[in-house]
Amino acid sequence: MIELNFAKSADGLLPAIAQDYKTGEVLMLAYVNQQAWTETLKTGRAHYWSRSRSSLWCKGESSGHVQIIQEIWVDCDSDTLVFKVEQKGGAACHTGHRSCFYRKVDSDSLQVVGEKIFDPQEVYGK
Amino acid sequence: MIELNFAKSADGLLPAIAQDYKTGEVLMLAYVNQQAWTETLKTGRAHYWSRSRSSLWCKGESSGHVQIIQEIWVDCDSDTLVFKVEQKGGAACHTGHRSCFYRKVDSDSLQVVGEKIFDPQEVYGK
Repeated sequence: MIELNFAKSADGLLPAIAQDYKTGEVLMLAYVNQQAWTETLKTGRAHYWSRSRSSLWCKGESSGHVQIIQEIWVDCDSDTLVFKVEQKGGAACHTGHRSCFYRKVDSDSLQVVGEKIFDPQEVYGK
Repeated sequence: MIELNFAKSADGLLPAIAQDYKTGEVLMLAYVNQQAWTETLKTGRAHYWSRSRSSLWCKGESSGHVQIIQEIWVDCDSDTLVFKVEQKGGAACHTGHRSCFYRKVDSDSLQVVGEKIFDPQEVYGK
């Protein structure tokens, strides 16, 4: 098991950046604790720790839009990760956009630029 | 001023991902507070809050390897940023590697893959 520096953060959570393994687009950022890290390595699917629900979160468990791990990169301090993933369903964001980073700073406002892939009402609103 | 959700984290710090604006390579992750965010917008150079030094940090202030902001993207929850930057000096990591993410998970170990651009002793060891 590759050791990460979970002690670096007060809450034992480290940021993990999910990046499209083909295009390099940054899709989202979420957090891992030891359990999420272990599950990610074991299953080859991105697992995070949901801060809002305080529970282990297999990304895509509700939507089916799982993230298949292609590569994992660890930073110089072993306290941040990059998951290079294949994003099933083509979208990582709960709003239906391909990336959570779909808004760009334009002077003093945010411009919506990112592509919307699905209607969240259809995917989550059952 | 574009408002971010600093209240989302207990310490008022939000993660900012620095990404090479041409290649899409993720270079590093650091944290911003309100002051670092304001300075970044004002100066067009990436500013972070150093957790280890508890002070505002203009990236590259010692090494000259500043990050010129090309684009800023804000996520769906306004609690994470992507800085698309031109990395002066060609390297973001204090170890001299182009990216802080220069180690890749390979089975049960980390393999050093990323390119080393400078000798930290020469840049910082004056």
